[in-house]
Amino acid sequence: MAYELHYWPGIQGRGEFVRLALEDAGADYVDVARLPVDQGGGERALGRRRRGMAPEPFAPPILVADNLVIAQTANILMFLGPRLGLAPPDEPGRLRVNQLQLTLADLVSEAHDVHHPIAPVLYYEDQKAEAKAASVHFRADRMPDYLGYFERQLAGSLWLAGEAASYADLSLFQVVRGLEYAFPNTMAALAVQLPKTLALADRVAARPRLVAYLASPRRIPFNEQGIFRRYPELDEA
Amino acid sequence: MAYELHYWPGIQGRGEFVRLALEDAGADYVDVARLPVDQGGGERALGRRRRGMAPEPFAPPILVADNLVIAQTANILMFLGPRLGLAPPDEPGRLRVNQLQLTLADLVSEAHDVHHPIAPVLYYEDQKAEAKAASVHFRADRMPDYLGYFERQLAGSLWLAGEAASYADLSLFQVVRGLEYAFPNTMAALAVQLPKTLALADRVAARPRLVAYLASPRRIPFNEQGIFRRYPELDEA
Repeated sequence: MAYELHYWPGIQGRGEFVRLALEDAGADYVDVARLPVDQGGGERALGRRRRGMAPEPFAPPILVADNLVIAQTANILMFLGPRLGLAPPDEPGRLRVNQLQLTLADLVSEAHDVHHPIAPVLYYEDQKAEAKAASVHFRADRMPDYLGYFERQLAGSLWLAGEAASYADLSLFQVVRGLEYAFPNTMAALAVQLPKTLALADRVAARPRLVAYLASPRRIPFNEQGIFRRYPELDEA
Repeated sequence: MAYELHYWPGIQGRGEFVRLALEDAGADYVDVARLPVDQGGGERALGRRRRGMAPEPFAPPILVADNLVIAQTANILMFLGPRLGLAPPDEPGRLRVNQLQLTLADLVSEAHDVHHPIAPVLYYEDQKAEAKAASVHFRADRMPDYLGYFERQLAGSLWLAGEAASYADLSLFQVVRGLEYAFPNTMAALAVQLPKTLALADRVAARPRLVAYLASPRRIPFNEQGIFRRYPELDEA
């Protein structure tokens, strides 16, 4: 049985955390909204389909598997983790991975809100001055706080939780690449404080199935519709 | 064995979602930071203690139980739910409750960011104009979107997931009371669209142990240091 992933087709977004886990495990899945429109793909079909699901999810990403409809990124990954070999076998280990994933989710939300501090429905161009003010604090306080935290979690260990890679490691890779895309100057300045985190990101990127995935057209490039956006004015010294 | 909750002692905040579950179940717990300072309470001791925990949590709330250190509100509740009789017995039910809790967590973050759109480290007074702009969209778009979603989840059912109360129901109660405190005019205007949600909040508040808790000094009043703040200028028509 193939997993069905339902997510906005033009961006990595939060769906990418699910894609990375599925790809790393070589799982059989269909990225439904990326199919041609005449096969059910596209944003409009996704919106229609979401409202018809039972129980109704609030927003994508949504995973359909075994007749279950599962939403919220961290919740999807908690379901997939043990099934894909990307979570520890015991409850304490799974709680730990879920905790790390939720902390990454908080960082992702804050990274998004830097370019949309006033409202998600407004254009960036309508909140540029506020975004610039928000970016100063995000780069000076929040990025070092969060990334320094993950760096400490890697003291004495190749992976965030236990002796094998978990979906939290794949997610930290994605966050690092996203921040490098959106805030290249800030990440360059922080690099000296983050040797373990950057090495982990490289280690994830070198996993054979992810090497193939990242080089494939299935990996949507970062762009200015997603969570991590390269607006140079938000990354100025 | 008593559970230990570690959370900022002066606010309901995210810790309140954990307190409500513990109180509803009549669990034995210590709200450590609310002890007198000479018994280990207070904000400074909490900050010191967090940094010494292993593994280190990123932020409160933190639950210590069975030698486990568990952080992130939804993660703590996922751990406590089955132990306190506040989660369904089966995996699909637990995924559903976790999904609802994470959706409530998103709403809670957005409600907080209305009064802190630029940066959490700045005072409200330093971002009042931006907060006012953010409040217009939060009240017009986000509150109806989220609350309408929860209203639909209650169609034909007394509780959000299954035939018994779960921690997601307690959390929806808390969010409703928080929004009523922070945005009384907006909630009054929305009430006609939310009969099931408001009835659920009343049903939760009438649970015997919660009646006692809510009337006790253990329930910290809403205030202007927490997530839900009553700033009249952010609730104007």
